[in-house]
Amino acid sequence: MNWAEFSPEQRSGLYRAIYERRDIRVFRDDPVPPETLARIIRAAHRGPSVGFMQPWDFILVSDVETRVRVKDLFERERQAAAQFFDHSRRSQYLSLKLEGIMEAPVNLCVTCDPTRGEEVLGRNSVPETDLYSTCCAVQNLWLAARAEGLGVGWVSILKLPRLRRILGIPPHVVPVAYLCLGYPVEFHARPVLQAVGWRDRLPLSDLVHYEGWGQQTGNGAWSEVREALASNKEPDPWKRE
Amino acid sequence: MNWAEFSPEQRSGLYRAIYERRDIRVFRDDPVPPETLARIIRAAHRGPSVGFMQPWDFILVSDVETRVRVKDLFERERQAAAQFFDHSRRSQYLSLKLEGIMEAPVNLCVTCDPTRGEEVLGRNSVPETDLYSTCCAVQNLWLAARAEGLGVGWVSILKLPRLRRILGIPPHVVPVAYLCLGYPVEFHARPVLQAVGWRDRLPLSDLVHYEGWGQQTGNGAWSEVREALASNKEPDPWKRE
Repeated sequence: MNWAEFSPEQRSGLYRAIYERRDIRVFRDDPVPPETLARIIRAAHRGPSVGFMQPWDFILVSDVETRVRVKDLFERERQAAAQFFDHSRRSQYLSLKLEGIMEAPVNLCVTCDPTRGEEVLGRNSVPETDLYSTCCAVQNLWLAARAEGLGVGWVSILKLPRLRRILGIPPHVVPVAYLCLGYPVEFHARPVLQAVGWRDRLPLSDLVHYEGWGQQTGNGAWSEVREALASNKEPDPWKRE
Repeated sequence: MNWAEFSPEQRSGLYRAIYERRDIRVFRDDPVPPETLARIIRAAHRGPSVGFMQPWDFILVSDVETRVRVKDLFERERQAAAQFFDHSRRSQYLSLKLEGIMEAPVNLCVTCDPTRGEEVLGRNSVPETDLYSTCCAVQNLWLAARAEGLGVGWVSILKLPRLRRILGIPPHVVPVAYLCLGYPVEFHARPVLQAVGWRDRLPLSDLVHYEGWGQQTGNGAWSEVREALASNKEPDPWKRE
């Protein structure tokens, strides 16, 4: 079966979602319509998975008491992590708002069950492909959310054994992503860490190698690709910084 | 800055890419235009990353000798992995076409450098978030490729130490995804492993938990979400199996 080509407008929708997706930490308190929430979870379930393993589960959380416990866990970890930054970076780090656990109307933990399916086709060489699959599913959800005008923030500053205990997750299941979901106050033009000068976006040409690691001149067949990457001629709807 | 809402057509483009993305193993030999290739690599570079770490690199490969070595590595691994399947599954496994290393006009290895950026904000609790970020970038690329009519196949049946040697990748850098890229002969309606009866798609309602692991009845606030997930009312353009 062959699908129709994407229209330019459909293509721009895909690229808009990619370019305008942000990690959202400030939420309005409007609720998320059940149909919308179902749509973005379904998008995650359409993620690619090694051997069609579909190792993911989704735990939806709104209960205040549970969120207070997750927020407390985050706060301890945030302070612990601060110790590893030197003075000036530490105060900047502590000034950043990094999550919206209590404000977001929906919290969602996406997990990976490494035991799903006995012998999984394609997972013999790299067992971590179950986690990789789960991350691809999360990215589907994140982009679908963006297209729905919905913000997603990934809270990675959490110790997993405690998070398991709070959510009752079995020891063998990996909590891959703890997400905060809701309508954002705004979608910023640039990632927060870029805007506040924490880190710059890396020049893409430094990250592309031709035929082998460290070969970055891109002679012969690759010279046009290298030029295209350097010239960065993006179609209008998604040319934004 | 607030962006405009997505038009229904743009939204359908995003969902089409998600629903119609496939793991492609059969390629036409048309070349990939340099501009298109640059566009999908740029889409990957717009992936989310922990602490804006951007841990990825991209190694483009077309050299036949290199691909012969990767294909040989795949073949050994494929045979090795076959030992773990029982008789009937083993012959089915060995009958499946699982990669297009030699036929695809472009091979692309996406790697993760765990040493990029000294102390990475948000990576203290879960160091694997660098790999997670790289996978999100791969999913961006995969979806952008789909919107461009381009197929991507992820070859996970490769031993990483040998793959590193073939591509000259330093020992500390993780080859996360070895991808085959090109125009597909077709985009199948369903994933190959589903179509051949290897594994079924799991019912989504079995994978959603409410307020804690194992709580799947979704009472109270969640009953509407549970109904929406069960009814599966997807807008037309992406209602396909």
